[in-house]
Amino acid sequence: LELSWNVSYPQQVVHFQLLAKKLKFGLLFGMSDRGEFENADLAVLWSDGHRSYFGDAWSDAKGQLHMDSQQDYQLLTARKAPEGLYLLFRRAFSTCDPKDYLIEDGTVHLIYGILEKPVPSLQAINTSAIHRGLQRVQLLKPNITVPKLPSDMDTMEITAPDIVIPSQETTYWCYMTELPEHFPKHHIVMYEPVITAGNEALVHHMEVFQCAAEFDTFPHYNGPCDSKMKPERLNYCRHVLAAWAMGAQAFYYPEEAGLAFGGQGSSKYLRLEIHYHNPLVIKGRRDSSGIRLYYTGTLRRHDAGILELGLVYTPVMAIPPGEDSFILTGYCTDKCTQLALPAAGIRIFASQLHTHLAGRAVVTVLARDGRELQVVNADSHYSPHFQEIRMLKEIVAVFPGDELITTCTYNTEDRSQATVGGFGIMEEMCVNYVHYYPQTQLELCKSAVDPGYLHRYFSLVNRFNDEEVCMCPQVSIPQQFHSIPWNTFNRDVLKSLYSFAPISMHCNKSSAVRFPVRTASQPELPSQT
Amino acid sequence: LELSWNVSYPQQVVHFQLLAKKLKFGLLFGMSDRGEFENADLAVLWSDGHRSYFGDAWSDAKGQLHMDSQQDYQLLTARKAPEGLYLLFRRAFSTCDPKDYLIEDGTVHLIYGILEKPVPSLQAINTSAIHRGLQRVQLLKPNITVPKLPSDMDTMEITAPDIVIPSQETTYWCYMTELPEHFPKHHIVMYEPVITAGNEALVHHMEVFQCAAEFDTFPHYNGPCDSKMKPERLNYCRHVLAAWAMGAQAFYYPEEAGLAFGGQGSSKYLRLEIHYHNPLVIKGRRDSSGIRLYYTGTLRRHDAGILELGLVYTPVMAIPPGEDSFILTGYCTDKCTQLALPAAGIRIFASQLHTHLAGRAVVTVLARDGRELQVVNADSHYSPHFQEIRMLKEIVAVFPGDELITTCTYNTEDRSQATVGGFGIMEEMCVNYVHYYPQTQLELCKSAVDPGYLHRYFSLVNRFNDEEVCMCPQVSIPQQFHSIPWNTFNRDVLKSLYSFAPISMHCNKSSAVRFPVRTASQPELPSQT
Repeated sequence: LELSWNVSYPQQVVHFQLLAKKLKFGLLFGMSDRGEFENADLAVLWSDGHRSYFGDAWSDAKGQLHMDSQQDYQLLTARKAPEGLYLLFRRAFSTCDPKDYLIEDGTVHLIYGILEKPVPSLQAINTSAIHRGLQRVQLLKPNITVPKLPSDMDTMEITAPDIVIPSQETTYWCYMTELPEHFPKHHIVMYEPVITAGNEALVHHMEVFQCAAEFDTFPHYNGPCDSKMKPERLNYCRHVLAAWAMGAQAFYYPEEAGLAFGGQGSSKYLRLEIHYHNPLVIKGRRDSSGIRLYYTGTLRRHDAGILELGLVYTPVMAIPPGEDSFILTGYCTDKCTQLALPAAGIRIFASQLHTHLAGRAVVTVLARDGRELQVVNADSHYSPHFQEIRMLKEIVAVFPGDELITTCTYNTEDRSQATVGGFGIMEEMCVNYVHYYPQTQLELCKSAVDPGYLHRYFSLVNRFNDEEVCMCPQVSIPQQFHSIPWNTFNRDVLKSLYSFAPISMHCNKSSAVRFPVRTASQPELPSQT
Repeated sequence: LELSWNVSYPQQVVHFQLLAKKLKFGLLFGMSDRGEFENADLAVLWSDGHRSYFGDAWSDAKGQLHMDSQQDYQLLTARKAPEGLYLLFRRAFSTCDPKDYLIEDGTVHLIYGILEKPVPSLQAINTSAIHRGLQRVQLLKPNITVPKLPSDMDTMEITAPDIVIPSQETTYWCYMTELPEHFPKHHIVMYEPVITAGNEALVHHMEVFQCAAEFDTFPHYNGPCDSKMKPERLNYCRHVLAAWAMGAQAFYYPEEAGLAFGGQGSSKYLRLEIHYHNPLVIKGRRDSSGIRLYYTGTLRRHDAGILELGLVYTPVMAIPPGEDSFILTGYCTDKCTQLALPAAGIRIFASQLHTHLAGRAVVTVLARDGRELQVVNADSHYSPHFQEIRMLKEIVAVFPGDELITTCTYNTEDRSQATVGGFGIMEEMCVNYVHYYPQTQLELCKSAVDPGYLHRYFSLVNRFNDEEVCMCPQVSIPQQFHSIPWNTFNRDVLKSLYSFAPISMHCNKSSAVRFPVRTASQPELPSQT
């Protein structure tokens, strides 16, 4: 199956073109909250062996198909060609059918299935017995014209050195490389994926990181990122130069800005990280995928910067087990932007949302004078498996005194213990890396609940529940969370605490130095309710 | 203006006929959440002096009118007659226009306005400067055929004795009367309002109560219910025989049941209570309104009964000040119905919802085996000024072991102190009087939070907030609530407490005797989330 689509913002409509190369008895194509075939919105083409039918259908909580009372996938043409069958159909972003999926900004989980036998009716299709799949995309890509590229542009490919993809479902591959000696400061103006032909379905996402300037050398590692052989020092290669995820296209910087790399005070060492997703456990497949950087020595007006918003990586922010949508919020307060941003403000043009495995939705809003002004970036079908850098539909100007509030929603229904904040894969993060210009010294503007108030929570829970839970000060915060009996009262009061207690602000100039802002009482904003 | 309407349940459409007797330059007619002219859904007929226009419009939060993008009030005919202009138009219960009001069961606040000058456009209408009004109705009356009435039916009018309506906005008038000597047991099968001609707009609601049988005599009072002259004993006349509110029609008992009155063991004394609403402070108007009871000596198969569901009248259930929609829930638990209901169950056929002034919504659901089974009665636009007895669309069967959960939503935005449960007009209630047959001994099945847990809440608030709030045991519960500093944490934790803490059940055989059920741990039900 090959999907192309066109978005018309004035008409609020998406046109889909689906090419089915070897069609047998029909196909299913549609959308659902997180890629499941239950409660999905589907366009279905099916044949009973004699005639073919097309319809707008929905699946119930058991995956059983039903015809929609209102037909909103409108078939425009069906055309046979040597390469296969082309289906052209259109769908409004929002329909009035309560069974339909609402097409929104952010991630859309596209699902598809192939019918290999004739079926007497739509209802006879067993969605769990067909060959089927999932593809995450940003369906509503912003309508931005491609910026003009400089004539003196050069390219550099940061690619894997013809490695063998391990025959296991999930691999994070780490490859260290370096910039040429005495490579002066340049601006990256664009980058795009370079994927070895035939491996398009295996390369899940890729990132290029620059290493920390404080170390003179880094070892030349080439192997799995989780290997015991991986040198510790590679953890200091975390400054993102480029990021791509399956479904994403080339990334262009705005004409007035570029991402600086090379030159004095920056490391020449780069780390390429590739996530290979190999569910069929294919053996011996070779790969040289990576990212092609387009850069220029003619520096643009502004250096672009990356600012980290959201929650501090600390266990004080925790999610009880068994929650279907638990919300944590991180603040970049007015006090921090007042101190750290220039009077003319900064312009945010792109954003990369980040959580670990329990993340289900992320949103950052800009507030001024205590009022929500605009959404910076929102993804209500966020997936930790699809963390692309997204251009914003419109550039967001942030001025001193503004607030940036990042809210993450988590699902911990499959966990039996509390999930605390931290770096581990089973711990959680709530981060929005916003890309902006002109670059400032502010690298990080995040918060966490005041630890003193969290301590009051532990002792309150202890007293209210009449239980012998050890809340002794020498016990670590994760251990204290793990010993809480998670009844509805303790859950609710934790939520109340997080929305009430004062916060501790991290307003950092670089990875080490803080701007002199610490504890703030929590702002009362509409977004918090 | 005179409104008639017809409901088609198969088509989910209401047909309205509006007779405008003295039309000048147009009128507004529509619906809004609580009768306000802001955020309202309106059909507008207006004239610029030359031509007339009709349109489906909406008003924004400032009361400014806008044309709907989708026209859902469909004008069918406009006809001039000697008595005035007839407008016939239709409106679906639910439209796909987000600016439209959803027509639901329960109270609908109809609003209207008269244009006395020509207007150049819809936008030029100033909704706050026109002559306007509000009428609450149950728009979606159940589609029940009128039960056959017995041939030996008799009538009795319980009416005010030609009193003078006081020249003040609000009067509750109390009039004591009695049944004939040795009046044997009868069944009331129907009742209807009797309103003195010309006083239709002044008589707001009326109730007939039977007095308690334990007193032999009651004084013959005739005067305002809040007068200092009113004898204390009238407070023992609380058993409802009939209730009517403006907008309501005649009330019919189902053919298989009637409300018993007269005979051994019941008082012959009745109290009529009339609420006069006289905003124009008309003087000297005489009134003999009341209720006409239709009764028969040929007893029907079942005596009807009234069961009180919801919350016990106790200050332990409280609403913080400044809340826009605070929820309290009262339970009639499985344990109580198990003990008190006959194996064949009871049939609920009507319901009267009751709160004091802060009530905004009331709903009772029936649950069986921990699952919500059906809604008994719901009003999401409930008004304490429109407490009619409503026939249910379908009879609800309740069996031993079932649960009846009553949830009330309150608004205390205009209050500065906590509102506690109780009898006073500034205290609150959460009650659903359900009318059912066959009559049982169970008169009351209500709950309240366990007082021990409320005490833990007071001491938790005390400790968490580091404030010197006196939570000494000798202080009354209302005083303890009044001394709480109402920050978001204390509000949230009170909500959490009410949904978590065990409840104390009142499962009463009569006003005095309890079935042996007391404290129950709170059932976890979907309705509670």
